[in-house]
Amino acid sequence: MRPERLSTQAGKPFEPLNGAPARGFPDSEFKARLARAHRAMRADDLDALLLTTEADIRWFTGFLTAFWQSPTRPWYLLVPADGKPVAVIPTIGEPCMRRTWIEDVRVWSSPAPLDDGVTLLADTLGELAGRSARIGVPMGAGTHLRMPLSDHARLRTALPAVDWVDATQALSGLRAIKSQAEQARIRYTCQAASRAFARVPDLLHAGMSDVEAFRAFRIACLQAGVDEVDYLVGAAGEGGYGDIISPPSGRALAIGDVLILDTGCSYDGYFCDFDRNWAIGKVGAEVDDAYRLAWQATEAGLAAARPGASCHELFETMRAVMAPHAAPAAGTGPGSGDVGRLGHGLGAQLTEPPSIMAGERTELVPGMVMTLEPGFAYAPGCWMVHEENIVITGTGCELLGVRAPEELPRIT
Amino acid sequence: MRPERLSTQAGKPFEPLNGAPARGFPDSEFKARLARAHRAMRADDLDALLLTTEADIRWFTGFLTAFWQSPTRPWYLLVPADGKPVAVIPTIGEPCMRRTWIEDVRVWSSPAPLDDGVTLLADTLGELAGRSARIGVPMGAGTHLRMPLSDHARLRTALPAVDWVDATQALSGLRAIKSQAEQARIRYTCQAASRAFARVPDLLHAGMSDVEAFRAFRIACLQAGVDEVDYLVGAAGEGGYGDIISPPSGRALAIGDVLILDTGCSYDGYFCDFDRNWAIGKVGAEVDDAYRLAWQATEAGLAAARPGASCHELFETMRAVMAPHAAPAAGTGPGSGDVGRLGHGLGAQLTEPPSIMAGERTELVPGMVMTLEPGFAYAPGCWMVHEENIVITGTGCELLGVRAPEELPRIT
Repeated sequence: MRPERLSTQAGKPFEPLNGAPARGFPDSEFKARLARAHRAMRADDLDALLLTTEADIRWFTGFLTAFWQSPTRPWYLLVPADGKPVAVIPTIGEPCMRRTWIEDVRVWSSPAPLDDGVTLLADTLGELAGRSARIGVPMGAGTHLRMPLSDHARLRTALPAVDWVDATQALSGLRAIKSQAEQARIRYTCQAASRAFARVPDLLHAGMSDVEAFRAFRIACLQAGVDEVDYLVGAAGEGGYGDIISPPSGRALAIGDVLILDTGCSYDGYFCDFDRNWAIGKVGAEVDDAYRLAWQATEAGLAAARPGASCHELFETMRAVMAPHAAPAAGTGPGSGDVGRLGHGLGAQLTEPPSIMAGERTELVPGMVMTLEPGFAYAPGCWMVHEENIVITGTGCELLGVRAPEELPRIT
Repeated sequence: MRPERLSTQAGKPFEPLNGAPARGFPDSEFKARLARAHRAMRADDLDALLLTTEADIRWFTGFLTAFWQSPTRPWYLLVPADGKPVAVIPTIGEPCMRRTWIEDVRVWSSPAPLDDGVTLLADTLGELAGRSARIGVPMGAGTHLRMPLSDHARLRTALPAVDWVDATQALSGLRAIKSQAEQARIRYTCQAASRAFARVPDLLHAGMSDVEAFRAFRIACLQAGVDEVDYLVGAAGEGGYGDIISPPSGRALAIGDVLILDTGCSYDGYFCDFDRNWAIGKVGAEVDDAYRLAWQATEAGLAAARPGASCHELFETMRAVMAPHAAPAAGTGPGSGDVGRLGHGLGAQLTEPPSIMAGERTELVPGMVMTLEPGFAYAPGCWMVHEENIVITGTGCELLGVRAPEELPRIT
């Protein structure tokens, strides 16, 4: 599709986005996911999966709660090769899990210092998959095991004959392809965040502290219809910014600043992840040029993102637009823009596999939701980073938010 | 101190909270933390600590970023037994880390599928602590290793003579005692959230969907002066609620509901964690009685929380107030209130050690910031949960927010 152009909403009354998707998924969604998982498990000869993280457990169950913020208690989900998932969780989560399509919910009162669910987990695994099963656990890049290492050791001791296998590839391949219902949530979140971004020239001004700017933008996102502003980073600096992951410092926005805001909002557990740039008053021509170049790199990415293209090719396409213009002095290190990739998957997490990076041979397929995130240093310590969210369609890609304007917008 | 009473602010213009503490900590704060850590490490004969999670790394460095939301990249901090911490982190975090007091920052361009920092980490560990060192890693309850299991295996293979030791106890003992500067942040967050809670009767009404209620409360928290509403759960049900960790469902608030909102907001990386209850219109006397009882249990907890008291004693004090009144039918399982504890530490995380639970012998000491969270089921599927945040002083405790009212407040 051709990108719609951003228009500021100066003078127009703001309205929240209509058409929010109904919350929750029908059981058929989870049955379809499980069927795909069972195929992937058969291909890898897995008797069961052991999952411990929020996004993995939610993908199979629909178990959605902010309670993961608390690191105190572990949560486990077992996916047998031939049946529905079984939850092994703290009692405090039982009512919430029982409202999902999961039927077999086994609980213990946690925290329990002497045995925080390990015996229950080992017994359930043995019952479902056998005590010498081949069990998949995510072990690869971008994963971690959300259970205490000492409990992990106890589990391995309790099941000495189990063969523990890395399930990273199988799982990321499953989760990377979003259903229509998942796409609808991400699209809604992107559109709502686009409305908040469009209000920024009305909400922010020189002299306002970056703390207040962040706060005003968070409120605008909520007013636009997202559930949570899970992620917001940004930077403002005279003539450019050199760090895109820091929180606000209290510094006042000033004429001559380049400002970036990058947000991951969520709706019903699904994220957007994109950014926008502004000039505050007058900035040098090199900033406008850098902005236009990053915009053009994104255009190239939008044109190249189609089924069958590899992440490597997409990376090279965007890099080729920017490379001749990157500041040679930037080199590597701070301000070099050397962040390893130019985009990534997203959905139930702010960032998911695959990465759009050199050497990543994963091919795009319909249903993948991705960020295109071209960025480069146009001077030492001065980055320009653009970001858009797309879903791969049968023939190309669909832009999920409102496209950034071709020219760097001003906050006056 | 005697608790200040909550007053609603109906009719009064709302003002954000003044007196926000300046952001960031002086180097002296981190030097003092490190000195305490070195003493704990000597007591456990540790040559270094290896840390991988947000809260642990931030405690030693001040490295504050929302970027932890992205699971893609691992981050490492090494704390040698006799020097400043050394950061081994992805390039994208270098500018942010270089603004902290950390001097030795070693980076690699991540994601790097073939070696995502493991060689750099192993070499740095070997250089700082020796290749047969005794290295502490958090392995116990409430912890996890935020690095891929496969990279963990590679690290152990690269350093076969290292003795890996559980550092959970040493670290939680350090972090549990908050400095004056940390206490000031938590106090500010609690006071700001108290202002938002006080506005609830003005913002919420019967007929409003719980989604809109959550959104209005989030905005009120931001307007009151917090940086982020990291955690918000709640429930509303006719005559009571039975699940306190679910997100809103879209159901409209109705006359006869009991409503709970429980929030963890943060300011400069420090959390509050407390809840408030309301009746929407008329509810039965058993609800008012349950509310008063949970309030009285909190009063007993406030009176008992002092240096030298154990978490076990504090648990028993609050439990004894509620136990004679808990519904026998509630038993265990959903609605039983069997959540394992009646409060916990908090600070850089929503929940931290120690737990206020049976058998927990940890003694309260000045500077510990805790939640008192008495709750019980007054009927099957009907919980009543109260929560307040306190800091242990030299002689007792200080309430950090505005005390909940003694009688269940109404939303009319």
